[in-house]
Amino acid sequence: MADKRRSFYGWGYQEDAVSAEELGWFERAWADLFGVDQFDPVPMPREGEIELRAPRVAIPKSLAAFCSDDKYDRLLHSYGHSPHDLARMIHRRDFSNPPDVVAHVRDEADIQAVLDWCGANDLAAVPYGGGSSVVGGVNPPTDERYKGTVTIDLGRLNKVLEIDAASQAARVQTGVLGPDLESQLRPSGLTMRFFLQAWEFSSLGGWIATRAAGHFATVYTQIDDHVESLRVVTPSGLIASRRVPASGAGPNPDRLFLGSEGALGIITEAWVRLHRRPTIRLATTVRFTDYEQACDAVRAITQSGLYPANARLIERDEAAFTEAGDGSADVLVLTFESADHPLEPWMDRALEICGDHGGAWDTEALGQADSQRSGAAGNWRNKFLRGPYLREHAIARGVMRDTVESCITWDRYLDFQDQVKRRTLAAIREVTGREGTCTVRFTHLYPDGPAPYFTWHALGDKERLVEQFWAIKAAASQAMIDAGGTITHHHALGRDHREWYDQERPELFAEGIKAIKGRLDPQAVLNPGILVDP
Amino acid sequence: MADKRRSFYGWGYQEDAVSAEELGWFERAWADLFGVDQFDPVPMPREGEIELRAPRVAIPKSLAAFCSDDKYDRLLHSYGHSPHDLARMIHRRDFSNPPDVVAHVRDEADIQAVLDWCGANDLAAVPYGGGSSVVGGVNPPTDERYKGTVTIDLGRLNKVLEIDAASQAARVQTGVLGPDLESQLRPSGLTMRFFLQAWEFSSLGGWIATRAAGHFATVYTQIDDHVESLRVVTPSGLIASRRVPASGAGPNPDRLFLGSEGALGIITEAWVRLHRRPTIRLATTVRFTDYEQACDAVRAITQSGLYPANARLIERDEAAFTEAGDGSADVLVLTFESADHPLEPWMDRALEICGDHGGAWDTEALGQADSQRSGAAGNWRNKFLRGPYLREHAIARGVMRDTVESCITWDRYLDFQDQVKRRTLAAIREVTGREGTCTVRFTHLYPDGPAPYFTWHALGDKERLVEQFWAIKAAASQAMIDAGGTITHHHALGRDHREWYDQERPELFAEGIKAIKGRLDPQAVLNPGILVDP
Repeated sequence: MADKRRSFYGWGYQEDAVSAEELGWFERAWADLFGVDQFDPVPMPREGEIELRAPRVAIPKSLAAFCSDDKYDRLLHSYGHSPHDLARMIHRRDFSNPPDVVAHVRDEADIQAVLDWCGANDLAAVPYGGGSSVVGGVNPPTDERYKGTVTIDLGRLNKVLEIDAASQAARVQTGVLGPDLESQLRPSGLTMRFFLQAWEFSSLGGWIATRAAGHFATVYTQIDDHVESLRVVTPSGLIASRRVPASGAGPNPDRLFLGSEGALGIITEAWVRLHRRPTIRLATTVRFTDYEQACDAVRAITQSGLYPANARLIERDEAAFTEAGDGSADVLVLTFESADHPLEPWMDRALEICGDHGGAWDTEALGQADSQRSGAAGNWRNKFLRGPYLREHAIARGVMRDTVESCITWDRYLDFQDQVKRRTLAAIREVTGREGTCTVRFTHLYPDGPAPYFTWHALGDKERLVEQFWAIKAAASQAMIDAGGTITHHHALGRDHREWYDQERPELFAEGIKAIKGRLDPQAVLNPGILVDP
Repeated sequence: MADKRRSFYGWGYQEDAVSAEELGWFERAWADLFGVDQFDPVPMPREGEIELRAPRVAIPKSLAAFCSDDKYDRLLHSYGHSPHDLARMIHRRDFSNPPDVVAHVRDEADIQAVLDWCGANDLAAVPYGGGSSVVGGVNPPTDERYKGTVTIDLGRLNKVLEIDAASQAARVQTGVLGPDLESQLRPSGLTMRFFLQAWEFSSLGGWIATRAAGHFATVYTQIDDHVESLRVVTPSGLIASRRVPASGAGPNPDRLFLGSEGALGIITEAWVRLHRRPTIRLATTVRFTDYEQACDAVRAITQSGLYPANARLIERDEAAFTEAGDGSADVLVLTFESADHPLEPWMDRALEICGDHGGAWDTEALGQADSQRSGAAGNWRNKFLRGPYLREHAIARGVMRDTVESCITWDRYLDFQDQVKRRTLAAIREVTGREGTCTVRFTHLYPDGPAPYFTWHALGDKERLVEQFWAIKAAASQAMIDAGGTITHHHALGRDHREWYDQERPELFAEGIKAIKGRLDPQAVLNPGILVDP
């Protein structure tokens, strides 16, 4: 496969070490946060020290050309990238349930063959794109009715097959990761611009299966709106939807698979919408001393029809921690982008709205072509991009950092935020015996409400980190559901969110999904534990 | 119920006669079109001359308070408003299959009681909103396994229940018709602005069930994007989705019912997104002498991020017929609307794009506050709004006018248009023995392609009008499918489009829908013949 090897317990390639300087910065920030002098990190796990259960199934000869039971391969596919997944690995807590086989499928026929094999032998099939799930979406199931787990890695299906420049769309295999997708698109002048935080190590198919949300804060937020058509391999056969920009012909087939998380089929190809690479960009940061006024400004902008590419409101404490602000003001990172026209009228009106709500901004930052890479916005952006690389180092030190995210209408937003923060902080106190933090920013915006993203920090006990992560996450999740939000705007459900999904979705709708799954996946081989139980 | 009685064979209330002057204008236009001197209209049908089959079922006492088997009521609910439906009535061809009972339900409990009754007695239940279906969506099924048909009229569920001004959303009962909805919203300053052609006599529930498309040509086109959450009564119970602006928690439950056309459940309530009433509007018409260049201009505008409220490209022949142009040029009706900011930069750039593609426009029309109501755009708008009222008069004269509409990517658009027009004109020639017309406009636009709307005219034989309508419609529909488009962008499927829907949707997806229907509607009482067969 690739020449560089991915780290099995952390983010990125094995050689992509975090520099001592960068780590030092974060260590000081964590030390300040918790008022401790130093940390005593556990060393990172090495492949040699881990014993894996022998594969419980033998690879049939007919599948041997693309299936592997190599130790590293199985280790790499044992977990996703939630903090509690990482804690399990870094603190050597649990390597007891790796996949038995990893299938590096080369085409749809390979997938169908693997699904047939699984169906005939009571094996679970777990689809795997980039492996970046933070919700237990790629972890082998623990259900004892299965005699083994086969992880279906789509990494070889990584080609842009066709570009339609007139319609600004491309037909793409779904195993492609973000950077590879963009580099294949680059010669056309088009871009998908779906820059989520996990972009480097997440796949197009993963984005579609989990309803990921990308770069744009307004209008084209979730992947749903970027999909023209899909090809999906199910145990009962292929589903290929007709490629049209829109249709009113019955329930949209694609929308059944958007969010199906590998439980109804394996998405192999998609026609996706692209954009011309933006050539004009205006960005600035606006400071607000009153949070409620800041929310009102963002709401007014979102309801104005100006459609900024970004309008990320970062609460003052979070802004301070990521050096986007000094802690005295909430910070709105505001960006307009275009490949077509100058943006001053758009930005001028958005800033006028901010001014009406007590916002202040630096005019000099505004004009810079590169303004999102420098200053407060640039600081924020760097911390955001480096976040996944630091996660393993935090965990090795017992520093807990996790996020929960939701979506809620404006009329209930402030109460929602209060409840989630209050209950998360209370859980941190109860679980760890000391104070932590919980801050919020908006990632995506709709005319009827924001998608708030909560980040919490706590100092845990290295011996009990997995349980502590889980207890705090559970409290935050239940708070979001109780306060009327959704359990996820774009992190997906996986196995971890199932308890709250079951509270959120209508019971009879789940019965309907179960009926569909019974038809498409009659042996229930696909991603057990996800969405519904057979 | 209402004091005014709806016409059972035509559009509007019985007293809303078309004036002699207006009818005269259209008669002259039709006479010019076909080169005939005069028409010999059949008189409109009267209730007294029609005999209806006696109801095949007796209304149970428990349902008598809201169910009726009154003759006018059954007649009114016998057909939708497609031209061939109207032709059946106006030419007295077929009144053989009226519903046996019309249930004027008052609440969800009434609906559940009717569905229970239907399930226990092999009766079909046909949901009915405004009755404006042009695709046979409300016609009683002819399937002999049913011992009768109960039409469930939702007209009494017509209240706006709650308005959330902060989130610009409202909770609304789905039986409300367009004008009543807007008048209930008016005091709030908010509007749904979902002005489709059938707006006066179509319901919110109908828009949702059929995935209607509304006023806005870009971004917020289909009703799908206006729905926050739904309540749906199914024979197996209630499904109520959580009200959030967006969620990534599994497949979206609302998207299963958007487009379900009454076959999976009856939508009783929705939270819908609203807009502030626009206070600023710029509109103009741009003329193009080269159609391909006009398409390129529209494509560039759609891909620019300017998001006009309207950008309706009307082919020159259609423009001439509706007095939007003189026949020498294709006409683009271009409108920007806002409740927030002046629109000159938006319009200026859009016109610059038009200029780059050979477009010409009058600058004086641009500045008028009322510009969409006057001049070429105003002429077009009047003809558009009056269209449904004229339909019955055309049909009485043997003048056939029907529309088919689709959606297609830009790379295939010109070929698609050529094929559909060519095959439709050939069918007109073959079926009627004389030349007709087939023209096209764009109703809605996506970055990846337009939604073309074809209008055809033919002079038929009054004795064979229904068969002639059907033969031409079938040819046009098959052409759209063969050329890669969808059978409908917003007219829906009903019973009439089933043949082409079956060619369009993936077979295995239909099997999945069948499985869901089996779970939600196990006795298959809901709208038989729609979407899938049990």
